[in-house]
Amino acid sequence: MKKQVSIKDVAREAGVSPATVSYILNDTPGLSFTPETRQKVMDAVEKLHYVANQAAKTLGSSRAEGIVQSKLIGIVIPQTENKRKESHIMFENPFYGTFLSAVELEIRKAGYHLILSGTNPGQSYIDIVKSRTLDGVIILGAYPSGDVAEYKEYKIPAVLVDCYGSDNSFFYSVRTDDRLGGYLATKHLIEKGHRNIAIVTGELKENGVNSERYQGYLDALKEAGIRPMKKNLFEGYVDYRYGGEVARSLAKDRRGITAIFATADITAVGVINGLNQAGISVPEDISIVGFDDVEYAQMCYPGLTTIRQNIMEKGRQAARLMIEAAQNHRLPRVERMIPMELVERGTVKEVYVD
Amino acid sequence: MKKQVSIKDVAREAGVSPATVSYILNDTPGLSFTPETRQKVMDAVEKLHYVANQAAKTLGSSRAEGIVQSKLIGIVIPQTENKRKESHIMFENPFYGTFLSAVELEIRKAGYHLILSGTNPGQSYIDIVKSRTLDGVIILGAYPSGDVAEYKEYKIPAVLVDCYGSDNSFFYSVRTDDRLGGYLATKHLIEKGHRNIAIVTGELKENGVNSERYQGYLDALKEAGIRPMKKNLFEGYVDYRYGGEVARSLAKDRRGITAIFATADITAVGVINGLNQAGISVPEDISIVGFDDVEYAQMCYPGLTTIRQNIMEKGRQAARLMIEAAQNHRLPRVERMIPMELVERGTVKEVYVD
Repeated sequence: MKKQVSIKDVAREAGVSPATVSYILNDTPGLSFTPETRQKVMDAVEKLHYVANQAAKTLGSSRAEGIVQSKLIGIVIPQTENKRKESHIMFENPFYGTFLSAVELEIRKAGYHLILSGTNPGQSYIDIVKSRTLDGVIILGAYPSGDVAEYKEYKIPAVLVDCYGSDNSFFYSVRTDDRLGGYLATKHLIEKGHRNIAIVTGELKENGVNSERYQGYLDALKEAGIRPMKKNLFEGYVDYRYGGEVARSLAKDRRGITAIFATADITAVGVINGLNQAGISVPEDISIVGFDDVEYAQMCYPGLTTIRQNIMEKGRQAARLMIEAAQNHRLPRVERMIPMELVERGTVKEVYVD
Repeated sequence: MKKQVSIKDVAREAGVSPATVSYILNDTPGLSFTPETRQKVMDAVEKLHYVANQAAKTLGSSRAEGIVQSKLIGIVIPQTENKRKESHIMFENPFYGTFLSAVELEIRKAGYHLILSGTNPGQSYIDIVKSRTLDGVIILGAYPSGDVAEYKEYKIPAVLVDCYGSDNSFFYSVRTDDRLGGYLATKHLIEKGHRNIAIVTGELKENGVNSERYQGYLDALKEAGIRPMKKNLFEGYVDYRYGGEVARSLAKDRRGITAIFATADITAVGVINGLNQAGISVPEDISIVGFDDVEYAQMCYPGLTTIRQNIMEKGRQAARLMIEAAQNHRLPRVERMIPMELVERGTVKEVYVD
């Protein structure tokens, strides 16, 4: 690799000291220089194509202020659950791609960069945070509470997205009102005359979004005087394949179910496709409401009726809070809620009950 | 942030010199130590939870060897084409998410990390490469030739994925035989009796995959003695929305077209949905073949007949070549081809011509 231009080269070219170059480039507070000096330095920077070396900067500021500023932010995205072998970051659900794309742009606009990394089995993300001296971490979804405790111990700014842990009081947090969303989805089906409504969901973990959405489902049933039935709860995975499994199970035994609330669009699409393959039509035979409003939801035909959360906005808010936290090294309790709404498309049919 | 454990702390704990700790942790060639010394150091590392600071390592090795090893790899993914304002990394096409997920795992397994960054308007990716002292860059899709020339000038290892530039002789390259793919897709439609076959594609840029796939389309027509017609070429964007536009245009004026080759699945899905909305049925009224075999292709109903390229394998190969290049600092011409095949699902109908 070609030798990099150093701050000393710039100083020599400009005829000033390296310290002066550093002060001017870093806009060091409390120091002022003549416009001529400033111009000489900027001319030299341009002439030599000087680009500040972030690795050097990190150590420099670390030494000078006792604070590490790598301008690197980490992002933690759930991985496939293949614990014995290697596991991939989950991009099957388009939610993550859209979220990541919004985060990357905001991070970049603020002059930071994003490290995208999963963790190997048995490895803690804290290792990456330390070895890269990350300025902060954005964490999506439920996460081992031990890890979150470590962020707290090491005072690492973290923004938790879609987490419901009790430790949240220490961190920034971005989420939607998932319980309300589950309620709205189910209420819509009830208003269209359905009473035998199944729910298809990922694992109902404590403090996870699925549990919240399930609670909302129960709220709506209770309000309508409908007794929840165990046979109507399909608890499995948030993925396309599980949706298909549920559909095949329903094709064998419909159990009187006329409508389904799927707690994620990706699962809903799996259910719809599986039902279609079994000759069961949506919405003619079974109605379905999803959650997320991923791009899929508009792409399938008929379009999916779903709970729209603004995923781009969620990403933007998470990134902005992250940068605020990284720059100010303070960690007040901030919780930002992303609004959401029901979007009616073509997968719910009105039924008339006797 | 809590003070980090330094190599000196480890040395003190182990009762050896900091140099010894460094040599042992870095497996410095040509030096050997007793098993006891080695054990003492490893025990101290474990006891103190020492994690090597990559920023310090980068500068250390840079000074010692004149070679920068940040263990950071950059990945360049096409961005939305909003040149005046800000532009997002394109994740609408699920190809990118799948590819990224495969790259990340391979990079991680090799002890590297991945920086995911777009570029601001007017900014060159080279700035990021230099400021982060990246060990290499994986570039997806066609890229401004000026940038590629800069990689060459600065001897930055780069793996070009799906690029057809002449400068490729200098770089590692991973791709599929796109021309053959276009040929196979079109030939399949011809074999099913179609002769009036449209092609829906992104911009036909020189050295781009779309141009190659278009050439394959022309090859198949020529072989069958079918004259290509200008009215059958729909050249626009590789996205869902453009597929819908083409569908609406066909709904107004079918032009005798009975089959479509879409050069990307995401566009094919847009066409199918658009035709459905206009009351035109696939494959009863119009047959369609896509390209990529993204997860969508299996999720839609009927499943999309398409040219399957193994996207995961493409990502793995790109990452492995990248690491090889970064570690060896050599840049031989290596080109790796990912095989591909036609996958028949439900979107092509056989027709009988008089």
